[in-house]
Amino acid sequence: MNTADLGLPVDVPSTALFTDHYELTMLQAALHGGTADRRSVFEVFTRRLPEGRRYGVVAGTGRVLDAVENFRFDAGVLNFLRERNVVDEPTLAWLADYRFSGDIWGYPEGEVYFPGSPVLRVEGSFAECVLLETVILSILNHDSAIAAAASRMSSAAGDRPLIEMGARRTHELAAVAASRAAYVGGFATTSDLAAGFRYGIPTVGTSAHAFTLLHDSERDAFRAQIDSLGEGTTLLVDTYDVQEAVKTAVEIAGPKLGAVRIDSGDLLLVAHRVREQLDELGAKDTKIVVTSDLDEYAIASLAAAPVDAYGVGTQLVTGSGHPTCSMVYKLVARAESADPDAPLTAVAKKSAGGKTSVGGRKWAARRLDRNGVAEAEVLGTGAVPAELADRQLLVELVRGGEVVAREPLDAVRERHIAVRDGLPLSATQLSRGEAVIPTEYQ
Amino acid sequence: MNTADLGLPVDVPSTALFTDHYELTMLQAALHGGTADRRSVFEVFTRRLPEGRRYGVVAGTGRVLDAVENFRFDAGVLNFLRERNVVDEPTLAWLADYRFSGDIWGYPEGEVYFPGSPVLRVEGSFAECVLLETVILSILNHDSAIAAAASRMSSAAGDRPLIEMGARRTHELAAVAASRAAYVGGFATTSDLAAGFRYGIPTVGTSAHAFTLLHDSERDAFRAQIDSLGEGTTLLVDTYDVQEAVKTAVEIAGPKLGAVRIDSGDLLLVAHRVREQLDELGAKDTKIVVTSDLDEYAIASLAAAPVDAYGVGTQLVTGSGHPTCSMVYKLVARAESADPDAPLTAVAKKSAGGKTSVGGRKWAARRLDRNGVAEAEVLGTGAVPAELADRQLLVELVRGGEVVAREPLDAVRERHIAVRDGLPLSATQLSRGEAVIPTEYQ
Repeated sequence: MNTADLGLPVDVPSTALFTDHYELTMLQAALHGGTADRRSVFEVFTRRLPEGRRYGVVAGTGRVLDAVENFRFDAGVLNFLRERNVVDEPTLAWLADYRFSGDIWGYPEGEVYFPGSPVLRVEGSFAECVLLETVILSILNHDSAIAAAASRMSSAAGDRPLIEMGARRTHELAAVAASRAAYVGGFATTSDLAAGFRYGIPTVGTSAHAFTLLHDSERDAFRAQIDSLGEGTTLLVDTYDVQEAVKTAVEIAGPKLGAVRIDSGDLLLVAHRVREQLDELGAKDTKIVVTSDLDEYAIASLAAAPVDAYGVGTQLVTGSGHPTCSMVYKLVARAESADPDAPLTAVAKKSAGGKTSVGGRKWAARRLDRNGVAEAEVLGTGAVPAELADRQLLVELVRGGEVVAREPLDAVRERHIAVRDGLPLSATQLSRGEAVIPTEYQ
Repeated sequence: MNTADLGLPVDVPSTALFTDHYELTMLQAALHGGTADRRSVFEVFTRRLPEGRRYGVVAGTGRVLDAVENFRFDAGVLNFLRERNVVDEPTLAWLADYRFSGDIWGYPEGEVYFPGSPVLRVEGSFAECVLLETVILSILNHDSAIAAAASRMSSAAGDRPLIEMGARRTHELAAVAASRAAYVGGFATTSDLAAGFRYGIPTVGTSAHAFTLLHDSERDAFRAQIDSLGEGTTLLVDTYDVQEAVKTAVEIAGPKLGAVRIDSGDLLLVAHRVREQLDELGAKDTKIVVTSDLDEYAIASLAAAPVDAYGVGTQLVTGSGHPTCSMVYKLVARAESADPDAPLTAVAKKSAGGKTSVGGRKWAARRLDRNGVAEAEVLGTGAVPAELADRQLLVELVRGGEVVAREPLDAVRERHIAVRDGLPLSATQLSRGEAVIPTEYQ
């Protein structure tokens, strides 16, 4: 396969190391005990949404498919496991031949989810499925957290475009996945070149305060930028005095100046003043971009301000208060023997003290009300009721180890917007509340 | 260079893509305008600590050195920049020859920092320094956030070892850096195999609930695990009934059972009961490991409980409420011309509305009181006062583009513990408060 398809902007020999030690020791014990081949069903779900959130957003599915496809143990990895005595020789031999050969179904990427929604279902032998736990959860927990924040921000921003610019606030490779997830959640562009390289997301950016400070005067800096990048560029106007900077900017660039960026101060007030000043100077088409620790609330509070675009960094890449989802990967059913035709038995943790879950291989459907608006997330383990048959949420992603459902990121992004539009209106309220539709078990 | 030295567990052609679009457009404009070669000093610092925190922890410096060393634009990257019209041909030509040739000084990794501390200082031409902003901040902001949380947890845990097990709660590669940062902050081991592979951090783990559920009975599961992993293994005892499980565990493993793990319920209560039961069964040396959404407060609350080790996941990799630091990379001084001997002028953003900073190339020293306890973080731009000369904090990391200060992770970890021990006692209070020592500007 093309290493550019790995979900990273880099060559990766394998995703198999993104795995917790205990997945391999469980494998060893199951191989030794004769239970490794029992057909098993694992499901990914959350027990709750982050506090106050109305819906979750599934993101990272495409990266999961890449990770599964590339999950293999080459000589370097096997040597490491041997030297560290992580597992024994029979287990190493088994790992050397590892290829996932099972089936994966899941919510299509960009879909929304609710407590209990089986966003991914992995089915195969216990051995081949258990190994995938860590990397699948890493991807879905991270990417879905970012996409959920992005979705709230994009709904708060309405038609105004959002620029993802949080790379400096998160791990350098998490940043690439964050740009991707932000795009899924409705962002328009990113500052991150790696995200442009890897996922084709449009990249943007012009200058920082350092560029102005490098020059002997703001005027020199603006002239240098306009000379090189053209009048359509965005000038940063808050290094010294904003009013003076806007005047200088239009003097140098003329009324066709592309945009000005404001990165500090009372954005509501400053945006109004700058708009007025630009209009007076005849720069009626010059846009105003604001950036400064924005989150969905700040974006919403600027709805009435003359702002044309928002740049969002920290709060986006940290999930706006919820940097990870609480998705878990749980064994929900398994065969009673290694016989491929053995029936599946539902299983679940049962101890007192929480963390219990619902056993059994589940279907999921979203019931609509008479107006076509989502009304409930319905889950069950038996037959799907006829009236919900065409509202099922799980789609086939991997069949017998082969990925069967790759899709372009733009399709994922469009799906998310469409699905979000099908939720009750209160879904996009920013105030804290419960999940916007209930989860019902049948 | 060896690609294993890149700070990632994977081959990376370059770190140059982990860069914001605007760094390159600033470069283009500066090259075009003749200011690109002005000698410049950038400093990394925070304006504040996360709310309530007493100190910050510098982590990621080693990864920064790897990233700088590997920051280069190969043909694939240059083609991407050309096709997307990110910058013009003269800039692409300049990038093709890019090698950082300047100097970097910084707080040694594992040091603590306070508001304003110049944790890293990058000096060279504007062009070569400005490009490094994004990747340097990505690494330091992420890694330092994790290390700060780890440090609080390890101080709360006292002599009991901490296991990092948060890979599933963060991006798969951020997880590797998080394990590294946790180790710097005092953690003992990790569940993440990639962190073991890349950084040599000891990896641990035995089994999950899925392993128990795979079997026809808990007894079968325990027997399979003991048979394969030996009596020294750790059995997970909270899948069904804890008391029953502990009884079964000791029956099968005997009194030399290594440990039991409790992952749910009222850990304080359950740990006491399990300890009592183990002692009654003669398993006096069997340890108790607890894991279940622990943070520094939960760890502290278990200080009096008979717990031998803590496993920490979510709260560690999300920085225990502060998933990123607010480090910025600011131009603080630059020459007035491209002449290499031109004097440096201090510069700083000055607009109303916040985000101002202190210009000038700074020294930093930690003043001690008569008992040798840290008393103040002293920063200045002039000559270092004689009494602080031997308390300076910045060390040379890169000289003329060559890394001169690599060090083993264990040395970094030891430094952190020693430095933390030199802070006033209130530093390790978990309650919210101000920075434990003030920052003074001279």
